[in-house]
Amino acid sequence: MKAVTRLPALLLLMGSTVYGHPQGRDYSPQHAHEARGSLAVAATNGSSNPLIFYGRFISTPDPSTLSIQPNMAILVTTNDGRGVIAATAQNVSRPEDAAAALGVSTSTQIITPTTDNSFFFPGFIDTHIHAPQYPNLGLFAGTLLDWLQKYTFPMESSLSTLKSPQYANWTGSSPPNPYERARRVYNRVIDSTLSFGTTTCAYYATIDVPATNLLADLAYQKGQRALIGRTCMDNQQYNPDYYRDESTEAAINATWAVINHVQALDPSGDLVAPIITPRFAPACTNESMSALGKIAAEKNLPTQMHIDENVREVALVAQMYPEQDSYAATYDAHGLLTNRTILAHAVHVTDAEIALIAARGSGVSHCPDSNSALGSGIAPVRKMRDAGIAVGLGTDAAGGFSPSLLDNVRQAFLVSQLLSFQEGQNSSLIIPVAEALYLGTMGGAKVVGMEGRLGGFQKGMLFDAQEITLGSDADEVGDVDIFGWENWSDRVMKWVWGGNADNVSRVWVGGRLVSSKVV
Amino acid sequence: MKAVTRLPALLLLMGSTVYGHPQGRDYSPQHAHEARGSLAVAATNGSSNPLIFYGRFISTPDPSTLSIQPNMAILVTTNDGRGVIAATAQNVSRPEDAAAALGVSTSTQIITPTTDNSFFFPGFIDTHIHAPQYPNLGLFAGTLLDWLQKYTFPMESSLSTLKSPQYANWTGSSPPNPYERARRVYNRVIDSTLSFGTTTCAYYATIDVPATNLLADLAYQKGQRALIGRTCMDNQQYNPDYYRDESTEAAINATWAVINHVQALDPSGDLVAPIITPRFAPACTNESMSALGKIAAEKNLPTQMHIDENVREVALVAQMYPEQDSYAATYDAHGLLTNRTILAHAVHVTDAEIALIAARGSGVSHCPDSNSALGSGIAPVRKMRDAGIAVGLGTDAAGGFSPSLLDNVRQAFLVSQLLSFQEGQNSSLIIPVAEALYLGTMGGAKVVGMEGRLGGFQKGMLFDAQEITLGSDADEVGDVDIFGWENWSDRVMKWVWGGNADNVSRVWVGGRLVSSKVV
Repeated sequence: MKAVTRLPALLLLMGSTVYGHPQGRDYSPQHAHEARGSLAVAATNGSSNPLIFYGRFISTPDPSTLSIQPNMAILVTTNDGRGVIAATAQNVSRPEDAAAALGVSTSTQIITPTTDNSFFFPGFIDTHIHAPQYPNLGLFAGTLLDWLQKYTFPMESSLSTLKSPQYANWTGSSPPNPYERARRVYNRVIDSTLSFGTTTCAYYATIDVPATNLLADLAYQKGQRALIGRTCMDNQQYNPDYYRDESTEAAINATWAVINHVQALDPSGDLVAPIITPRFAPACTNESMSALGKIAAEKNLPTQMHIDENVREVALVAQMYPEQDSYAATYDAHGLLTNRTILAHAVHVTDAEIALIAARGSGVSHCPDSNSALGSGIAPVRKMRDAGIAVGLGTDAAGGFSPSLLDNVRQAFLVSQLLSFQEGQNSSLIIPVAEALYLGTMGGAKVVGMEGRLGGFQKGMLFDAQEITLGSDADEVGDVDIFGWENWSDRVMKWVWGGNADNVSRVWVGGRLVSSKVV
Repeated sequence: MKAVTRLPALLLLMGSTVYGHPQGRDYSPQHAHEARGSLAVAATNGSSNPLIFYGRFISTPDPSTLSIQPNMAILVTTNDGRGVIAATAQNVSRPEDAAAALGVSTSTQIITPTTDNSFFFPGFIDTHIHAPQYPNLGLFAGTLLDWLQKYTFPMESSLSTLKSPQYANWTGSSPPNPYERARRVYNRVIDSTLSFGTTTCAYYATIDVPATNLLADLAYQKGQRALIGRTCMDNQQYNPDYYRDESTEAAINATWAVINHVQALDPSGDLVAPIITPRFAPACTNESMSALGKIAAEKNLPTQMHIDENVREVALVAQMYPEQDSYAATYDAHGLLTNRTILAHAVHVTDAEIALIAARGSGVSHCPDSNSALGSGIAPVRKMRDAGIAVGLGTDAAGGFSPSLLDNVRQAFLVSQLLSFQEGQNSSLIIPVAEALYLGTMGGAKVVGMEGRLGGFQKGMLFDAQEITLGSDADEVGDVDIFGWENWSDRVMKWVWGGNADNVSRVWVGGRLVSSKVV
């Protein structure tokens, strides 16, 4: 694709302006704290004037509909710091007619498509991603529990402590700075997910408070919508000695520290907000889970945890919590299953668990990349959706191998096809591409508690969008090859199956341009 | 990734130089024929002087080994028109020492890596790809037999006849030219697969002789190694009336016409060669299959066909050929199962069929992208390999959704993980990444009858290679994010899981540079 080249330096430049260059200075978590005042300025750095977006808008207003509006105009008002869709107009034949159709001044700034093969699509919502594992994308070893020990815990701990096995063989003249590493990793995971069109992430961070607060700061600064979860890992038996909360009390205090930091950073909670994150039952204790459930209720906060990912993990939970009927019941007993809960994976969820999750109104993050890569199995998405459970998609980086939610849209279809075949060619189990796109946008909005505010282009929604640019009709090979005879429904399919970050030409969160490859 | 930008225009420019621009002229198949003299010149257009390649060479000499040679030099001699590895030298610390280590003049031209994060890898071998279906990548409808009728046959036929349903709603001032469409499609499929690092393709073309010959001409001109198969479709009941051979006799005559054209184009058969292609049993008749088996024996030609892809297809074959014990036996009865045979898919292959295929020495093209996308199932790769069957990988564009063999390396691992889980967590069924890379290179070489000549960097092999360039260690997001602390084994894994065409900086076939994104 020639019309669009990558321009990743812009946001990084912002980062280095605020934080200064790390070389030759002692980067400490306190420093990140001090910079917060500047970050708040950066986060509201978008235009406060209304904006018009004009062009082809494609979305999935319901699971079976791919809506294609070729000549639509959207008015985004940003005067309260949140870019909200104030009005829409369809069948506007020329961009110069958009202002009149929307009833605003013709001097209103207008954003038009990058090329004739560009379209606007709702930003993707990644309902499950581990920010500190970003450097491990593509590194696998066995199934879940082996992989956690070999790759995951060493990497996560390396963002806050020299006790991490990552530093065991370290040689050099001065000791490494784990927080400098945290800053590098978190800068990149945000830049990368934005570059792939992901406007909202439900992040798991680490157990460490300063590093987790830094993730919140960076998301806020770069303008990515983010739920920020400090992982609770207070179980002294299960977790490695180099990476665990010192005690339940310490875990709860750390949880409060992150909540307070994130809520001070964004009191509205619209852009970044804390999420209670008991990593998974084996990493926690009854005491921490109960305390976290109480905090969630007291502060009306969302919760997120893993559930039923791997058969050995399910057996481990049954062994550790023999007093509970199921994995889901274990969480429910501590008040952690609410209508603001994100349950990741749910591959081996039983009928009883499905009923319980549905009754509590909790959502599920379907992570097909990860579930295939770690050999976990195929989640029963249709069954959960039929039971009324909200389902979104998650990359689960780095159990998943890609920061791309679109890759998980593809895999959601592919594994559903395999499941359909296995279950006697039961085609009702297939998740068609349109529905997979719905899960990645509207479904995700429900799962992260933003139903009606994210996932589409309806009046009143926040304007979180990505502009997709396909190859041209001319005879050149591109990321998504278009010959020119394809209708737009087929072009969308070609994007889904061949698209990558190169096709995401621009990204907006709340009307603010947060990523651009347009030169 | 900043160091490498796409430069797809070079080869296309060559194409238009040889053929002239299509606009405003009557492009006919005869014209393609006439141009053949020029093409032969183009195909030997590489340097006839020896070349040294110096840098990091990574390959899979056996299924369980990822060989990483950080400082290797390879001498490629091209004086016979075939670029063959004449000598190798390891542990050459500097490029300026390479000539001496290889025993050649220090004035020998040397190719060095594009960046510090570049490496050479054997070119991928796509053992199953439908060139005329390239425009349909990502377009699906149901399972195999429905999809053939809705998307595949209309597109294939549109490359040679106005009877194609693709032209049913055509409106315009002058009629479309199917051969102009064929030229566009075939130019792109070759450029695209080269751009993804695929140096050899076993192509299915269409039933049409001039269009199929054109595919051979273009592959020869662009320098992609290719097996060219005219699909035999003489069954008057099964095939659509707008797209079938008129009779068995016509099918056999057309087969001969393509064989003669391709063998005249490249008498050595090293770069392009014909392959006998009875599409699949339902599309053929006993008569045509027998005749094709005889031609394969008489001319010592390879054969390729589909087998056991879909359960409805298997049932159809059993119904159409009740006198045969199995799908494989149907081919075998006509002399089509030889040690030069490529069987695509083999998802539902029985133990008896595995034994028969192994006894005949036939190879299998594993097409995991396609088998998942069409809901066909998961092929028993481990079982077939344990039985001694050579297995390679195939994109099966456009049953598969990607021209990338690397995507099929990923999917080969992913579906094997799912199969392992389904079969009682039998980890012996997993195809590890190194083995999947082996299947895409060395395995593919066996399947296309080039064992010992392709797939690696051993002395005597043809130099078919791709240079992979990863992101830099600097703080910028790229297609494959490298932080700098990763060892090379991990970097290769990151490439496998995150890489796309952007990472393929240069591609050589027989020592000739055939694709480059280096500016």
